[in-house]
Amino acid sequence: MKKKINLHDKLKKVGEYWSPKVVAEMNDYQFKLAKIKGEFIWHDHKETDEVFIIIKGSMKIKFRDGEVNLSEGEMYVVPSGREHKPYAEKECQIMLVEPKGVVNTGDEKSSDLTAANDIWI
Amino acid sequence: MKKKINLHDKLKKVGEYWSPKVVAEMNDYQFKLAKIKGEFIWHDHKETDEVFIIIKGSMKIKFRDGEVNLSEGEMYVVPSGREHKPYAEKECQIMLVEPKGVVNTGDEKSSDLTAANDIWI
Repeated sequence: MKKKINLHDKLKKVGEYWSPKVVAEMNDYQFKLAKIKGEFIWHDHKETDEVFIIIKGSMKIKFRDGEVNLSEGEMYVVPSGREHKPYAEKECQIMLVEPKGVVNTGDEKSSDLTAANDIWI
Repeated sequence: MKKKINLHDKLKKVGEYWSPKVVAEMNDYQFKLAKIKGEFIWHDHKETDEVFIIIKGSMKIKFRDGEVNLSEGEMYVVPSGREHKPYAEKECQIMLVEPKGVVNTGDEKSSDLTAANDIWI
């Protein structure tokens, strides 16, 4: 039987910032946990929407024409093709939902912040 | 710009039990909130996995060969085709993630518990 996933236990296993780790798969979609702090890069995902769910702390998603502030218990769907830049002043713990294989930095596939995919915790 | 979704605010708008309401869409998937209490029916979803995320309270998912207990901050992926029967002794608040159009009672499309689809809150 499949095991249940405890998000807080899994988050303890997440070390470095901006490096999403897979905790569950549903069809061809993945649920990933990440800790973020500081400024990410501008990027978009041409082929898919991307869901952010805030587990702990707060963060901001900047767009070219505005920004949205997200706190614990809030979620946001970034539409495909929309340039965005995540930012967190203090450490923030989030869950991402997106199709398997999505690169965290979008088209910027060789950024210092580009994380390896499919790493399960 | 798309609005953010506050899960606790949205849950205040959920009235009857076992009637999932849509709060977000990502590609052809939907995020739904539900309040559950008591015993659901045995069913499966032949065409898709189904994700349960517990927001508040605790619940149980019974299988023909076992069961899993889920509490706040835990999630579970029910594989496609696997018969299951959700149950909550006290009110439990959950988020479901599944493709648009999935019927909550699976193949049992005319159960008293079959809920209308695509109702947004």
